[in-house]
Amino acid sequence: MKKVLIINGPNLNLLGIREKNIYGTISYNELLKIISKKASELGLDVVFFQSNHEGEIIDRIHRAPEENMDGIIINPGAYTHYSYAIHDAIKAVSLPTIEVHISNIHAREEFRQKSVIAPACIGQISGFGIKSYIIALYAIKEILNLETTE
Amino acid sequence: MKKVLIINGPNLNLLGIREKNIYGTISYNELLKIISKKASELGLDVVFFQSNHEGEIIDRIHRAPEENMDGIIINPGAYTHYSYAIHDAIKAVSLPTIEVHISNIHAREEFRQKSVIAPACIGQISGFGIKSYIIALYAIKEILNLETTE
Amino acid sequence: MKKVLIINGPNLNLLGIREKNIYGTISYNELLKIISKKASELGLDVVFFQSNHEGEIIDRIHRAPEENMDGIIINPGAYTHYSYAIHDAIKAVSLPTIEVHISNIHAREEFRQKSVIAPACIGQISGFGIKSYIIALYAIKEILNLETTE
Amino acid sequence: MKKVLIINGPNLNLLGIREKNIYGTISYNELLKIISKKASELGLDVVFFQSNHEGEIIDRIHRAPEENMDGIIINPGAYTHYSYAIHDAIKAVSLPTIEVHISNIHAREEFRQKSVIAPACIGQISGFGIKSYIIALYAIKEILNLETTE
Amino acid sequence: MKKVLIINGPNLNLLGIREKNIYGTISYNELLKIISKKASELGLDVVFFQSNHEGEIIDRIHRAPEENMDGIIINPGAYTHYSYAIHDAIKAVSLPTIEVHISNIHAREEFRQKSVIAPACIGQISGFGIKSYIIALYAIKEILNLETTE
Amino acid sequence: MKKVLIINGPNLNLLGIREKNIYGTISYNELLKIISKKASELGLDVVFFQSNHEGEIIDRIHRAPEENMDGIIINPGAYTHYSYAIHDAIKAVSLPTIEVHISNIHAREEFRQKSVIAPACIGQISGFGIKSYIIALYAIKEILNLETTE
Amino acid sequence: MKKVLIINGPNLNLLGIREKNIYGTISYNELLKIISKKASELGLDVVFFQSNHEGEIIDRIHRAPEENMDGIIINPGAYTHYSYAIHDAIKAVSLPTIEVHISNIHAREEFRQKSVIAPACIGQISGFGIKSYIIALYAIKEILNLETTE
Amino acid sequence: MKKVLIINGPNLNLLGIREKNIYGTISYNELLKIISKKASELGLDVVFFQSNHEGEIIDRIHRAPEENMDGIIINPGAYTHYSYAIHDAIKAVSLPTIEVHISNIHAREEFRQKSVIAPACIGQISGFGIKSYIIALYAIKEILNLETTE
Amino acid sequence: MKKVLIINGPNLNLLGIREKNIYGTISYNELLKIISKKASELGLDVVFFQSNHEGEIIDRIHRAPEENMDGIIINPGAYTHYSYAIHDAIKAVSLPTIEVHISNIHAREEFRQKSVIAPACIGQISGFGIKSYIIALYAIKEILNLETTE
Amino acid sequence: MKKVLIINGPNLNLLGIREKNIYGTISYNELLKIISKKASELGLDVVFFQSNHEGEIIDRIHRAPEENMDGIIINPGAYTHYSYAIHDAIKAVSLPTIEVHISNIHAREEFRQKSVIAPACIGQISGFGIKSYIIALYAIKEILNLETTE
Amino acid sequence: MKKVLIINGPNLNLLGIREKNIYGTISYNELLKIISKKASELGLDVVFFQSNHEGEIIDRIHRAPEENMDGIIINPGAYTHYSYAIHDAIKAVSLPTIEVHISNIHAREEFRQKSVIAPACIGQISGFGIKSYIIALYAIKEILNLETTE
Amino acid sequence: MKKVLIINGPNLNLLGIREKNIYGTISYNELLKIISKKASELGLDVVFFQSNHEGEIIDRIHRAPEENMDGIIINPGAYTHYSYAIHDAIKAVSLPTIEVHISNIHAREEFRQKSVIAPACIGQISGFGIKSYIIALYAIKEILNLETTE
Repeated sequence: MKKVLIINGPNLNLLGIREKNIYGTISYNELLKIISKKASELGLDVVFFQSNHEGEIIDRIHRAPEENMDGIIINPGAYTHYSYAIHDAIKAVSLPTIEVHISNIHAREEFRQKSVIAPACIGQISGFGIKSYIIALYAIKEILNLETTE
Repeated sequence: MKKVLIINGPNLNLLGIREKNIYGTISYNELLKIISKKASELGLDVVFFQSNHEGEIIDRIHRAPEENMDGIIINPGAYTHYSYAIHDAIKAVSLPTIEVHISNIHAREEFRQKSVIAPACIGQISGFGIKSYIIALYAIKEILNLETTE
Repeated sequence: MKKVLIINGPNLNLLGIREKNIYGTISYNELLKIISKKASELGLDVVFFQSNHEGEIIDRIHRAPEENMDGIIINPGAYTHYSYAIHDAIKAVSLPTIEVHISNIHAREEFRQKSVIAPACIGQISGFGIKSYIIALYAIKEILNLETTE
Repeated sequence: MKKVLIINGPNLNLLGIREKNIYGTISYNELLKIISKKASELGLDVVFFQSNHEGEIIDRIHRAPEENMDGIIINPGAYTHYSYAIHDAIKAVSLPTIEVHISNIHAREEFRQKSVIAPACIGQISGFGIKSYIIALYAIKEILNLETTE
Repeated sequence: MKKVLIINGPNLNLLGIREKNIYGTISYNELLKIISKKASELGLDVVFFQSNHEGEIIDRIHRAPEENMDGIIINPGAYTHYSYAIHDAIKAVSLPTIEVHISNIHAREEFRQKSVIAPACIGQISGFGIKSYIIALYAIKEILNLETTE
Repeated sequence: MKKVLIINGPNLNLLGIREKNIYGTISYNELLKIISKKASELGLDVVFFQSNHEGEIIDRIHRAPEENMDGIIINPGAYTHYSYAIHDAIKAVSLPTIEVHISNIHAREEFRQKSVIAPACIGQISGFGIKSYIIALYAIKEILNLETTE
Repeated sequence: MKKVLIINGPNLNLLGIREKNIYGTISYNELLKIISKKASELGLDVVFFQSNHEGEIIDRIHRAPEENMDGIIINPGAYTHYSYAIHDAIKAVSLPTIEVHISNIHAREEFRQKSVIAPACIGQISGFGIKSYIIALYAIKEILNLETTE
Repeated sequence: MKKVLIINGPNLNLLGIREKNIYGTISYNELLKIISKKASELGLDVVFFQSNHEGEIIDRIHRAPEENMDGIIINPGAYTHYSYAIHDAIKAVSLPTIEVHISNIHAREEFRQKSVIAPACIGQISGFGIKSYIIALYAIKEILNLETTE
Repeated sequence: MKKVLIINGPNLNLLGIREKNIYGTISYNELLKIISKKASELGLDVVFFQSNHEGEIIDRIHRAPEENMDGIIINPGAYTHYSYAIHDAIKAVSLPTIEVHISNIHAREEFRQKSVIAPACIGQISGFGIKSYIIALYAIKEILNLETTE
Repeated sequence: MKKVLIINGPNLNLLGIREKNIYGTISYNELLKIISKKASELGLDVVFFQSNHEGEIIDRIHRAPEENMDGIIINPGAYTHYSYAIHDAIKAVSLPTIEVHISNIHAREEFRQKSVIAPACIGQISGFGIKSYIIALYAIKEILNLETTE
Repeated sequence: MKKVLIINGPNLNLLGIREKNIYGTISYNELLKIISKKASELGLDVVFFQSNHEGEIIDRIHRAPEENMDGIIINPGAYTHYSYAIHDAIKAVSLPTIEVHISNIHAREEFRQKSVIAPACIGQISGFGIKSYIIALYAIKEILNLETTE
Repeated sequence: MKKVLIINGPNLNLLGIREKNIYGTISYNELLKIISKKASELGLDVVFFQSNHEGEIIDRIHRAPEENMDGIIINPGAYTHYSYAIHDAIKAVSLPTIEVHISNIHAREEFRQKSVIAPACIGQISGFGIKSYIIALYAIKEILNLETTE
């Protein structure tokens, strides 16, 4: 069973409370349940991590290989737009990583349209609301299967 | 059964022939088969369209509502980066549209990192090779189900 | 009787259907009737052309002199913002040309505020809704009369 | 009978004297006569105002509502390109306002291609020589009629 | 008793009439009364000046020292964004000056986020509605007291 | 009695030690005393928080609603210029927030003139030395009173 | 005998009619004759294609390999400056391609100085009037010989 | 005897009072005396004008031809950097005009290094303190003599 | 014996594991040994600190004076390019600080060529692989000796 | 017999030694022989000049008319990108000049894509390896013949 | 008698031959005579130097102090726009230096509007044709007298 | 014994005379002595070269391999910021090269913060006053030893 680390960056703990017109009304804990349910359907073992601290996110990425993670799904929140340190952390470990965004960042403020983290990831999924995580689960499964069977 | 229009823009007809290090070795026809197979698994009815002509792509998007399409998956190729006309066409019809890219456009040349079409779409999926289309099928299914059940 | 070619670019065929808050509720065919009526009041003979294809618009502009057109009114749609090829086509034929826009492009998104076609035209009229075309008819009449009597 | 305030900004008093290759040979007073004649044909009551002072132009715009003006036609001259104060003045009073330019500002020096005033106006007419004012009269009539009958 | 000159720039005379969603419903005269009342509570003698003319504002700043003003509170309106001449005027006289804004200029259009006048002032207060003036009174009192006792 | 959280960002713990020509000679602890004194005069209950950690500042903002804070005064230090994550945190909780700066950031290096946090706040006060905090207390009182009585 | 496809983009069909001060007085048909004559002198077999349609140019480039073309000479007209789709098409087929321009694009308007197509070509020849095509024939011959003998 | 209009823009009336480290300690009136003395040595008749009002400066430039001025020396103060209206006024009258600056504007803040007025003048003299005016007198004499004898 | 604090920023703990083609194969612990050995040769007492947390790095810099450090050598990792907070921290304590980089940052991606921290340091050493630290030891010794003997 | 000056700028003397993957393995002397051979075939008299000194290149261009040169072929090396002085020198003498580049400068680093010299030349040939010189010989012959026969 | 070094940069030796519409018809030698004549009238001893070599100009500036020059007048030609090395040379020697230009550089191409040398000079005189040198003589005399008598 | 070429660019011959607050009071000759002394301590054979001529610096770099130099230390002075020709020269010869700067260029004017030469070097050392050269000696020794023993 493939193990996937799901990292949520700053302010995502306030999901369902924060700017509901953009991020929706489902809470962070409900989100985790929805993801867990779909993950077990897909035969994936998910581990969650949320932090508002850039450094903690980097530390967690660093530990992923020794925890036998097979892949990472990360929503870096606002760090998406300036954390070259997270970018470097993803590059430093060699795990397949998918960047997800709840909102369509390419349709928002200028500064949100640029991801400094994307170049370190395999791919990016953005704009599908909390379904972005579900879609990312399908995606990571496709990638990991591919790697297994190749 | 939901009907999905899958549009491929310029040069995608040369898939498998063109710059294989970036776009892979699977041909355009093989891609269509792979997509069709997965679509039928997911209970989606897919219609394919490929054109190198910006105008034909716009015309085809315009016809989608009268053909009872439920959604669009579009890989606009190089038009991604300058076709405000396709952007306007997507906005003009009211179908949920997903933008896909084979390569991770956010990790390539400067000009490829900006999509002028993304703001007209629900979301964007990029970087998963031809799996981007498969992931987009999952995504469109999630979206259409959502719309159905709401 | 002066002959005027009225060219409408991409997505204008969807007038009345598309983004009504910006472009209004009158359909493309109703627009043509309104223009025709005013044109005949003003003693102008109008010929309509709409295309979503950049190339077809260029071809049509090229044919205008041999069809004895006296002037052109063009709403280039989204091509306004990047079609240097249409710009060159207008410069290539020597007919007085007026650029029109339904919305006030100078009050919209950054990319819509720049017209690459305007420098090839006599003048630009933007922001009066579909009345922009009526105003352009008055304008072309003024210009053509001027040219006749001078 | 609709009352229209016609404001001319800096240096327009020198019309016919100043840079004739760009602005033509008709004097400011002749221009006023031409506008008056056409206005009375169209059943519009026009009031003229010219000033080289940004502040006076703003004051005059402010007085327009209490003078029962129905609309404004303004050629802001060089203030077009930097007077956010005039922009704010037009927004502050709620009269339909049309921006006009004698020359095609979109075909001139870089700095003349940007109007900071346009976003506060209904629309912009530029490039038709002194005919720009005549065309603006037609335009304001269209707009005011529209507003009356609606 | 400290004497403070309160300068209001272009369009502020229309307060309560102009763009109420941004600037509120209190009129300019009501504003003056509110400021006067609070000023006398704080033991400050306030003198008001409003002009839409950049030159008059500069002239007034120049006269401030000979009128024994102890400080200036200025809301430069749209001149905030381009009047280097007012910037130079404030620098030319040596009175402590506070820049105020009713709206939060840092949260509005790009061009309103830059103040060319701020570098000539002690500080800037923006975003508190007409309370910005009240807060500026507290601020000027703090500054002037400081200067007195030092 | 209204409760106000006063957050100081990176390096403000070194006040009175650090770059005295810019930030003055009063120490961080002295500052807290001065603020406390004025707060109690104004009938405000203040709680202090200082951290050099972006993540801790975000965490603290998140806790503010459950601690029954009525408002926030924040000096984000250098995070002012790049922490979109703090910006998002302020938006996420719905408390009235005031940004303060000791120095006049609009008169310093280019990078300090832009606040990415300001758009999430009610207003900004900058340039009054440590008096900026005192002025912010007056401001928050005005705002909270307003909210209470409305 | 080497076979060379000579593609001319938008508005080149109007050669000799269009902006003669820039593009000269020789017509498109005369140009073809001049090229053909020189080509047969050089032992090259040339095939001509002109289109104002970006999509048709891409289609034609795609067909070149199956038509046993040995190389391409392309004057992309105004598409030079924005058609990333033609750029991708040239990269997609593996034929040696030379970009030609009649005028010296590096000495014209800012927007004409940038070729988005050049990076996909072997080289660029610009500024020699219609002689640019003749020079390109010499160049393609040099290249193809080189490839043959190597 | 040649007649020269010497225009001083905003804040120059405060010469000797304002920022003495940059502009020196000689007062505006002393400056006029120094200029007058040198002018009469050179056989020039000088007329002075100072205003802080952009509009008054424009009005004054407009009157220069009817007052039989032979040339203009202008120090536009801060208007140098944004008054396209003064630029247009200088172009509108056909008098030889010299731009002067007391300080070396090319060695100061970024915004002061650009003159929007210079392109309308014959030449620019900057950096010589109040001697810039003396040097401009020599310059205008050279120019006017030249014009006389030619 | 001089005491030097050696700070390593984010991802440097993964040295020898991370992107070996750029950062080499020596591990972080081996690096520390190499530095320690050379330091003792040079008579320097080195203290190591590594953190992925911006805030911890700032805290550590703040403590350096009270720990009697004589100087700092810092490799800020990716924080080099955006941490104005670390920049301010270095300025806040008055210890001579040297910035080091393993790779030649001036020869890498655009974003890595700019150091926002360098202006707060005495100097920068970049590009010598892990030898950059050794060279920095020589450098700090030179500086500290200089300071001692002066 | 037409006389052509062939100028090679900085570092071209190291041809065949320097960055062979970009510039090839043929030495500078071999290049001269290849050019000479082709020149005599074409009936052209070539004179070579190579210098790493910008000033010497300018001096040499200045002497070209008095040495009865009929044209110049110049590869300005890195001076291509910043030597406005060479640009001015070419404009100063009236000889037809062709700019050549061995590599396709339009496909290399950003700074190499801009030629400040091209606007002073008739045309530019780039990207054909050392064949660029041969092609330039054909080109100069075409141009000089044209000029002779016209 | 004051000694002034007059340096002319690249291409000025071709005066009267080169681009006469911009630089006039007087030759370099005639210019020297005109300058010499005026200099002796003004009691100045002038020494001329012209070079197309940036390095020679720097060397010559370096020698100026040991040759007892009292001031420098320099027309740096095209080096004006990029030679930071000449800028540094002027700063390195402490002689009062005046920058002159024959044409009005502020009214020409974008790249000519910026002088990187001006910040190292006392002032700049541009646009008066060869009279710029005469005016500079007056200017240097004023400056040197000033320095003598002070 | 390793042989190192030490190149100093424009204006460095004036060390100790020129802008002492930035570059210090030690003369160029004293610098050479200090470097020589340290070099012989480190067992390095140093050869000095100083020139204000870009071309001479390039020539000297070209000769370095045939003179059996093992490495280069270069302070390119102002050429650092624009001499792509020196950049190319360093790349053309294959010697390990270190760029040094006396001042901390990253803390000075905008234009001095960019080195166009750095990407051609192994590394850069800046900001240590004349000690930068001493540190570079240590660095080159480390590099050359490494190369020897590897």
